[in-house]
Amino acid sequence: MAKDKKKSKEVVKNPKGTRDWSGEDIDLLKAIRRQIEKVFENYRGLELDTPVFELQEVLKGKYGEDSKLIYDLQDQGGELLSLRYDMTVPFARWLAMNPDIETWRRYAIGKVYRRDQPAISKGRMREFWQCDIDFAGESAPMFNDSEMISIIVKVFETLEWSGRYTIKINDRRILDGLFEVCGVPAEKIRTISSAVDKLDKLPWLEVKKEMVEQKGLEESVADRIQTYVTRKGGKELLEELQKDEALMSNPKAKKGIEEMDLLMRYLRRWKALDKISFDLSLARGLDYYTGIIYEVVTEGSAPTRTPAPATDSAPPMPPVATNGGSNGLPRREKKQVSEDDDRSEDPSVGVGSVAAGGRYDHLVERFRPDANIPCVGVSFGIDRIIAITKARIAKGEKFSYIARNRTDAYVMAFGGSGFGGMFEERIDVLVALRDAGIRAETFWKQKAKLQKQFKEADRAGAPIAVILGEDEQARGEVKVKQMGLAEGDPEKEGVLVKVEDLVARVRGLLAKIDE
Amino acid sequence: MAKDKKKSKEVVKNPKGTRDWSGEDIDLLKAIRRQIEKVFENYRGLELDTPVFELQEVLKGKYGEDSKLIYDLQDQGGELLSLRYDMTVPFARWLAMNPDIETWRRYAIGKVYRRDQPAISKGRMREFWQCDIDFAGESAPMFNDSEMISIIVKVFETLEWSGRYTIKINDRRILDGLFEVCGVPAEKIRTISSAVDKLDKLPWLEVKKEMVEQKGLEESVADRIQTYVTRKGGKELLEELQKDEALMSNPKAKKGIEEMDLLMRYLRRWKALDKISFDLSLARGLDYYTGIIYEVVTEGSAPTRTPAPATDSAPPMPPVATNGGSNGLPRREKKQVSEDDDRSEDPSVGVGSVAAGGRYDHLVERFRPDANIPCVGVSFGIDRIIAITKARIAKGEKFSYIARNRTDAYVMAFGGSGFGGMFEERIDVLVALRDAGIRAETFWKQKAKLQKQFKEADRAGAPIAVILGEDEQARGEVKVKQMGLAEGDPEKEGVLVKVEDLVARVRGLLAKIDE
Repeated sequence: MAKDKKKSKEVVKNPKGTRDWSGEDIDLLKAIRRQIEKVFENYRGLELDTPVFELQEVLKGKYGEDSKLIYDLQDQGGELLSLRYDMTVPFARWLAMNPDIETWRRYAIGKVYRRDQPAISKGRMREFWQCDIDFAGESAPMFNDSEMISIIVKVFETLEWSGRYTIKINDRRILDGLFEVCGVPAEKIRTISSAVDKLDKLPWLEVKKEMVEQKGLEESVADRIQTYVTRKGGKELLEELQKDEALMSNPKAKKGIEEMDLLMRYLRRWKALDKISFDLSLARGLDYYTGIIYEVVTEGSAPTRTPAPATDSAPPMPPVATNGGSNGLPRREKKQVSEDDDRSEDPSVGVGSVAAGGRYDHLVERFRPDANIPCVGVSFGIDRIIAITKARIAKGEKFSYIARNRTDAYVMAFGGSGFGGMFEERIDVLVALRDAGIRAETFWKQKAKLQKQFKEADRAGAPIAVILGEDEQARGEVKVKQMGLAEGDPEKEGVLVKVEDLVARVRGLLAKIDE
Repeated sequence: MAKDKKKSKEVVKNPKGTRDWSGEDIDLLKAIRRQIEKVFENYRGLELDTPVFELQEVLKGKYGEDSKLIYDLQDQGGELLSLRYDMTVPFARWLAMNPDIETWRRYAIGKVYRRDQPAISKGRMREFWQCDIDFAGESAPMFNDSEMISIIVKVFETLEWSGRYTIKINDRRILDGLFEVCGVPAEKIRTISSAVDKLDKLPWLEVKKEMVEQKGLEESVADRIQTYVTRKGGKELLEELQKDEALMSNPKAKKGIEEMDLLMRYLRRWKALDKISFDLSLARGLDYYTGIIYEVVTEGSAPTRTPAPATDSAPPMPPVATNGGSNGLPRREKKQVSEDDDRSEDPSVGVGSVAAGGRYDHLVERFRPDANIPCVGVSFGIDRIIAITKARIAKGEKFSYIARNRTDAYVMAFGGSGFGGMFEERIDVLVALRDAGIRAETFWKQKAKLQKQFKEADRAGAPIAVILGEDEQARGEVKVKQMGLAEGDPEKEGVLVKVEDLVARVRGLLAKIDE
């Protein structure tokens, strides 16, 4: 309609809350994904790839309030479909479809979809990467649980985050038991639990106010809760609880505490005990958890404008900011979180937890009532891990597993007044180099100036130039030049080699350069 | 409603036309994907990962009739979105959004979506994997085109399909020129082209009938077309055309033929000339092609009931069947293909082309009118490549890059009357093995019989068992047993080693086994 719309310019943008991955970002994504995958394989996880959409009925009733964030496909006269919200429910659906499976260790790497209000500055995206591993089937008590936590440790050690992350753990049974002991009425346990879960971003007094004023809890009950949920620590906190007669007389709490003891014994063997913090305020949102729960927080996820993955919760430890989005991890319930709190665009908030999970023993039964397949799993928020890694690299840190994606050798032609800029000769050289596994390219425009070709070689990060010239060609020679040699270096201008010695020469130089 | 619906059993199935990838299939998928990716990287392709959905406007008007196969998302009060139909249009959209890019080599590996009638037996899926590489930006004439074809060769050589595939090539300019020369009216060129494209599955007489009876072409014109489009070959066919004065007087055909000559010169250098067949009947469906077009056919894609990816076209060479679905590759137009022909469920049809592509010089302009970014690309239909590879493996063929996904060492506990089946001790062993990069697991149920543990080790494909016993433990020893040794072998029952020598022993055995 508008006058300036003469040109038939079409819309060119991404859907809201999505991004394209390219350049350094995708190199980081691949490097980090590969590290995580290696750990999963070391622990004998087997990959499962499920469709990006599921039948709406499969997802229905699995995510509580957050179901409103599910992307539905249009009913086009076939099945009713939705994009997957996480990878846990598809795994449970797959287990239900394969009744012969007694135990399984599956991992999955893929994107999931949440039709949330996007907040790029906080990294709350609508499409984001997730990296999950889950163990299905019975194990000796707490054995799978402990191994799951050892995977978390191994992943972050492999990512070279040593000493910079904490695994907060708690157990739903301890939490529910202590609410009972404190006198929380049964019907209020979930809602009080979700209030407690906010202790990582709100002071106790505000949480108490929510419990008493909004949720109608007796003040004395709230005060009793305080004596528990403000505690965190390790073995010594567990020992305190073991001496708490009121708590130990509650069967749920007792069972949870006994198994927490066993878990810590195993964690010591897994060399993971010093990485955890037993935190009685950790509750996590999803309804389906039945036992141990955990989330991983890290130091130093600086405020960023990068499309950094944010989180549904955040650590109480400085300097990580305590507010986040909803990405990469099972979300906590939002019912009582004010819009303002949760959706502020304040760029000073950083990313929150980078991994989270827990035990869910009854999800498969939802699909197959006679199934008895208890599960435990963890989800890594790769987008957030990337954002933090990127910020650390920007500060000058190095990670051994991240290498620049470079061209090894850039093939150029000098002169080439003859047929098409010596393209046929360039092909011969490219074939020889590539057949030797050397990543080579050339500038494919016709008759480009040598200067332009050097610029392109530089852009490609190539440490070596292979330069063809007509005179050299006639003598069966080619020039090999290491880029960036100092003035005065005898090889600064390159070295002529016989065509048949080219590959060996380039290989030798690369070995020296990469040393 | 029904009486037998007492149990609250929920729906457990995949959406129609989709599948879960697990077990050997996903191992194959990963191995093949990795081989292709290695080639792309060797040619300095850079990965681009775009969202699984795009704005509907981005896809609109790009796929002709097949637009009806696009999955739309529900309008939930935000943007109108659709699942991607291929990876070419998202790449063009990305190029348009990045006007600074002059040249680029992007690859993409992901799933695409087509709401077609699924036909599992023919492998026509609604969600399937695609693996694309595209070069954007000007090059010396036919240089990028020739390199693209050399990628196809390198991929199939790397997949160890040597001698078992043919790259059919043609050029839209030659085709359009010869139609003009034969007297096809301008407005009928596309529809006649799509009739010609069926020569790989129909005899000439039927194609002629379609042209004359359905499309109203003069019979004499059809007869002239026959003299061209039933020809295929190599250099010699090109030489015949070069001598064809009528054809050479048409500017389009002349340009196409001259550049085909140049292409063949380059292909000889790329060592790819013997892999191609210059086939004047190849037309391909998509409107956006402007120059060279190609598709790859292979021998021996046997009829199968596996979820094998089928194709939009098929080779004329036996024993590949000549009918297919629509997966994995840009589709040919379907207007004139009868439902019966294209959708028959005849299980005797195999998979068709396994890769296809061509030059498309004006797609980016659709998004940014001032753009001048000619492109050329190829799409590999991984699902089909997997189906064929699987069938060949079933016949006993071996592929060096496909290895069984096995556990290296299975940790067992014998006895374990003490605490929880020696789980703490097992952890120590698992930690030591895994830290050494050895893929280890244990049976995680409590107090399993040794027989059951051996069964699990066997299922995991583990060539080595590490067996803990209480007495051995007390002496600081552990037993290492190579599985499947012959009766009478002195090490058949395993060898006791000191705990501190365990890793070295397992490593040594693995090296011997994998030799």
